[in-house]
Amino acid sequence: MSGWLAVAGLGPGDEALLTAEVRAALSEATDVLGYIPYVARIAPRPGLCLHPSDNREELARARHALALAAAGARAVIVSSGDPGVFAMASAVFEALEDRPDWERLDIRVLPGITAMLAAAARAGAPLGHDFCVINLSDNLKPWALIERRLRLAARGDFAMAFYNPCSAARPEGMGRALAVLREECEPGRLVTFARAVSTAQECILTVPLAEAAPQMADMRTIVLVGNRATRRVGRFVYTPRRAE
Amino acid sequence: MSGWLAVAGLGPGDEALLTAEVRAALSEATDVLGYIPYVARIAPRPGLCLHPSDNREELARARHALALAAAGARAVIVSSGDPGVFAMASAVFEALEDRPDWERLDIRVLPGITAMLAAAARAGAPLGHDFCVINLSDNLKPWALIERRLRLAARGDFAMAFYNPCSAARPEGMGRALAVLREECEPGRLVTFARAVSTAQECILTVPLAEAAPQMADMRTIVLVGNRATRRVGRFVYTPRRAE
Repeated sequence: MSGWLAVAGLGPGDEALLTAEVRAALSEATDVLGYIPYVARIAPRPGLCLHPSDNREELARARHALALAAAGARAVIVSSGDPGVFAMASAVFEALEDRPDWERLDIRVLPGITAMLAAAARAGAPLGHDFCVINLSDNLKPWALIERRLRLAARGDFAMAFYNPCSAARPEGMGRALAVLREECEPGRLVTFARAVSTAQECILTVPLAEAAPQMADMRTIVLVGNRATRRVGRFVYTPRRAE
Repeated sequence: MSGWLAVAGLGPGDEALLTAEVRAALSEATDVLGYIPYVARIAPRPGLCLHPSDNREELARARHALALAAAGARAVIVSSGDPGVFAMASAVFEALEDRPDWERLDIRVLPGITAMLAAAARAGAPLGHDFCVINLSDNLKPWALIERRLRLAARGDFAMAFYNPCSAARPEGMGRALAVLREECEPGRLVTFARAVSTAQECILTVPLAEAAPQMADMRTIVLVGNRATRRVGRFVYTPRRAE
């Protein structure tokens, strides 16, 4: 059995942000699986079978990829950003729990540039000190837990990065998160909305918390919240390395 | 004035984890600056001046690079991992605060694969749910703040990634952090020590918190702590996407 499964991160959008490791895996693959817009980023070629699927199909996609690898395929599941951050790697290991016979397969996770780091780089260095990373979607956890984490993060004066601030199914997450932040943080706290980073649609907007509005975020936006010391210098936003 | 400054992430060690964007910047550079072992990763070539410096010289290095760019150089400051995560990007913006005349320079931050994501990928998917990122060095902040953040992160049931768990100057950080975690978390909580990820010296060790010991970490180690639900499947460690 010579099949393998790679769970690979494509980075936030720009091809220049792929690693050579991911490029190599893609060039050797017989099958590429993933959410429709991510598979659309892969150039077709003879001998490569593309398997796009919907974004609620994570577990089925993971099982399909493992079954392909078990049958001898060289399968790559593609995620945007990094596969280990709110993406496909956890779903693959979840699928593996039900199938001990697949545990000995050659499975590798190939890291990618996750959206928050690409967004932070474009803004300056807003994550330059301790920070928390929170998925604002309440699809897989209760909102009460998200709210509790937001409050603890603010009380610890962590900078923050939010994934999935809103979606068609749950448009209210960003507004609720801003309401919690307004209770915990000063109105001048800097909030960066980074949309479609590294693509032609890129838009970076930094505003004080008092001016932040839910409609500044959409499905393609990462939100970065500074800590108490985060400030502007020229056109950049940065969080100092030092803290009291 | 055609000079520029790129603050670039080299990833954790393996050349295959560099992005094409960083490779391109390095190929155009006239000057590369950075901590001695990171500059040692750059191949010398005619027309390229290498400026290695000690790791306590961040601000002086940032000023030097900005001055070079202002004088027309194509300067790259190299960091290991990602420049925005406990690396050189914040120091550059700090240096910029004193020199408004440098604010209009062409300054770009080029993201890289930060060590925690490379470590998580090797271990499985321990950061597959909300997580906190904490620098355990008390060089630039008081230990009391680190301890407070550790407790808040544990109480929010965040997974955690620790940078700089110990150094020659401060060997006690890891032991103190483990003592705090033992007060806040159950003894079976999974802790992964990931040393020198993606290099020939790579070593990944996952143990329950009860068995974790400070000497499992050194200067080249990233420590990943799971949340309450983090578990093993086969040779992997992963944090489920779902939480109650």
